[in-house]
Amino acid sequence: MANLEEIRPNVHDSLGRVTELLQKHELVENLVQRQPGPRQELVENLVHKLHLVELQKLLDALHPADAAYILESLPLEQRLVVWDLIKADREGEILLEVSDAVRETLIENMDEHELVAAAEQLDTDEIADLAPDLPREVMQDVFRSLSPEEREQLRAAMSFPEDSVGALMDFDMISIRDDVSVEVVLRYLRRLDEMPEQTDQLFVVSPAGHIRGLLPVNRLLVSDPDTPVVSVMEREFIKLHPQEKAQDAASAFERYDLVSAPVVDDAGKLIGRVTVNVVMDYIREETDSDRLSAGGLLEDEDLFASVWRSVRNRWTWLAVNLVTAFIASRVIGLFENSIAQLVALAALMPIIAGISGNSGNQTITMIVRALALGQITGANARKLFAKEISVSVLNGLIWGGIVGLFAFLIYHNWQLGLVMTGAMVLSLLLAAIMGVAVPLTLQKLGRDPALGSSVLITAITDSGGFFIFLGLATLFLV
Amino acid sequence: MANLEEIRPNVHDSLGRVTELLQKHELVENLVQRQPGPRQELVENLVHKLHLVELQKLLDALHPADAAYILESLPLEQRLVVWDLIKADREGEILLEVSDAVRETLIENMDEHELVAAAEQLDTDEIADLAPDLPREVMQDVFRSLSPEEREQLRAAMSFPEDSVGALMDFDMISIRDDVSVEVVLRYLRRLDEMPEQTDQLFVVSPAGHIRGLLPVNRLLVSDPDTPVVSVMEREFIKLHPQEKAQDAASAFERYDLVSAPVVDDAGKLIGRVTVNVVMDYIREETDSDRLSAGGLLEDEDLFASVWRSVRNRWTWLAVNLVTAFIASRVIGLFENSIAQLVALAALMPIIAGISGNSGNQTITMIVRALALGQITGANARKLFAKEISVSVLNGLIWGGIVGLFAFLIYHNWQLGLVMTGAMVLSLLLAAIMGVAVPLTLQKLGRDPALGSSVLITAITDSGGFFIFLGLATLFLV
Repeated sequence: MANLEEIRPNVHDSLGRVTELLQKHELVENLVQRQPGPRQELVENLVHKLHLVELQKLLDALHPADAAYILESLPLEQRLVVWDLIKADREGEILLEVSDAVRETLIENMDEHELVAAAEQLDTDEIADLAPDLPREVMQDVFRSLSPEEREQLRAAMSFPEDSVGALMDFDMISIRDDVSVEVVLRYLRRLDEMPEQTDQLFVVSPAGHIRGLLPVNRLLVSDPDTPVVSVMEREFIKLHPQEKAQDAASAFERYDLVSAPVVDDAGKLIGRVTVNVVMDYIREETDSDRLSAGGLLEDEDLFASVWRSVRNRWTWLAVNLVTAFIASRVIGLFENSIAQLVALAALMPIIAGISGNSGNQTITMIVRALALGQITGANARKLFAKEISVSVLNGLIWGGIVGLFAFLIYHNWQLGLVMTGAMVLSLLLAAIMGVAVPLTLQKLGRDPALGSSVLITAITDSGGFFIFLGLATLFLV
Repeated sequence: MANLEEIRPNVHDSLGRVTELLQKHELVENLVQRQPGPRQELVENLVHKLHLVELQKLLDALHPADAAYILESLPLEQRLVVWDLIKADREGEILLEVSDAVRETLIENMDEHELVAAAEQLDTDEIADLAPDLPREVMQDVFRSLSPEEREQLRAAMSFPEDSVGALMDFDMISIRDDVSVEVVLRYLRRLDEMPEQTDQLFVVSPAGHIRGLLPVNRLLVSDPDTPVVSVMEREFIKLHPQEKAQDAASAFERYDLVSAPVVDDAGKLIGRVTVNVVMDYIREETDSDRLSAGGLLEDEDLFASVWRSVRNRWTWLAVNLVTAFIASRVIGLFENSIAQLVALAALMPIIAGISGNSGNQTITMIVRALALGQITGANARKLFAKEISVSVLNGLIWGGIVGLFAFLIYHNWQLGLVMTGAMVLSLLLAAIMGVAVPLTLQKLGRDPALGSSVLITAITDSGGFFIFLGLATLFLV
């Protein structure tokens, strides 16, 4: 690894170079297929192999995260050519780094033997991460190859639900006894070849394995060697529990600037640790999946997934959207007589629905964020409600005035303008009330308020906006 | 700090307790105002003070991040009461932790003297973070109180744009010479009282200050004391440049699991470091601001901002939305004659616009993500285009069939059903083409494709969907 200025472009350059070599390789393959002849074949075969050798060399030099990035950026056929060139002893690490959808395509094209070999190079907590994607027989083989202690770890790691601290945990920690001196610890460490990555602290445990304190590595270095460990260790610290929500652990890491934290069971026994790099990956995945579901995608989609797979990935939200659109359509259907008499209503109604949908989504974004941070209490919920309602009335008067003027200028009908303004105020009011009420209600029902509340508010403001506008028009204009 | 199970609820409990004490305090204040009398006043004043003393004790025990959280969760009036109770020597740290909007409300209520005192407790890189919010005179006073070296640091830190590596940098690093042994380094460290937080490595520099390598603290501990530093240090490592994009540094931290990284200038001189906790805060802020702008909010809004301020924060996107709604409305206006003749068109048209908007947003979510990861190259862009078009045609036939059937069942008009199906296929095709083209074009123009592309695609699919459906209907039905 060199300067980042070199590294970032390097990854892109590598991607460019990989694509180039693949294209040459394909060209030669085509030639060979078109003009078969023993001699020519020999020559072409040589050239062809040269490209692949160069490609392999390039791939060997890449960090696993960068190799994963290149695999994700290639169409399926080329991806598999590249995957075949990657050394067997790196396959495990790279499988961990690629996205779920891409991992599936790679695993589908590996045989049982290759999969077992790839999994066996990994730590037990990493095997647990891959496990859901591996065939049953492969997992059985892997399991058999482990030591009894490792089997126990794997069993533990796999027993925790996906969004729990247990799923983020690894077993690469250094624990020390509480009755020794700093000198003894230093001597013990010097006998190791290397320390596990992201080790910023050692875990001080009793002979029975109960955690007593933390000894930051940096404190170890500034302490007098004769000091007993107990007198320099931290006694007050964050302990994570394997069943806790991963989200809570992540926010503890952010809040208190942690690099690692111990995981202890109910009895206070040290069973593992969580490190900041895993937490950062978790946060990235969470925000990615939030963004995908906000866009109406079920899950992370392989950029080069088959058409059929992509269609299925996008199906659910389109179906939900279709139902809400049908409802809105029937609401309009109720007022077909009014529209037939005053066709301007048809042209103006999307304005009301659109603006109130946008405004409702603004309110919901605020409230969902505050709920996620736990900032909404019984005491301040009423204040928030009052604030959102005031904002919406003010916005309604301002924007309602503008759209009313617009309607008047185009249709020269001041009553129509007034109805527009009134409808805007009422539907922004509806949007504000629902923008607060929908996420609060979802939260009370124990559902995730971030999921689906935007679809729900848009459905409400669409149908509601049409109903309010066409209803007022029917009352006052027709 | 104790167990996380205690800590998380503790923050909520603390918020609850703070609110409770504040309410008691307000009650007493009201009593005092209603029944003024020298003796009673004395008694009440005592009770009143007792509550505040208890509150102050509670606040003193909180981690700055937790105090910030409580300030953010309180309405303005109560927030200022709490802020007054916070010890002056903690104000600086807490100002750093609160959100921009809340920081503004706190700074507005501090006098010049308090602000200077708060800023003076901070490191120079932290002062640089606060600087944009501080009045000019305060910054001048703070500047005067610094040592020449610190002034230089502050000047450097403030010279970098907000989204650069320079803005994430701190100066809390330990650098060592390259001609010493591990033993000397260990002795040097032992003379320190403590090491800076998040120090996972020391920076090895030449006498002129040029970076030569990194010495991971963990390697220091396992090395023989007699080894020269140069033979155990890392020679290949990530160097950040202060002018680089913060986003690139963040992705290097994620990719390569870094805890800290050196920042060097053009000449290769070490000028600072970036640590993982700052990177994590940066990522959180970025995703927050993405989410806010996706929801149509200009910036992070104080939950208890004044109505007027909130209205302004939400104004821009509503205005953009209004313009696109006006355009859609005029598109419909073109077909008023057709609608007057077949009023069912008015009820059916939102279905076409809604579904194609949703589908276009799905495509754009995929493309924006792939662009952000740099996964789209000239070679694969065409493949992606082809895939998205196939997906949209297939979706168009499926969903178009369903909506066509819906139209036929309600209006008993099979021609209308066919027009619905045809319009759905065409507008999903439009959505797919624009869903790929809009972000790619924004990227080519040097704009952020994440910003505004969703608004743009919705505007296109709305107006386009109405135009296609009403146009087809006018051609074939009227």
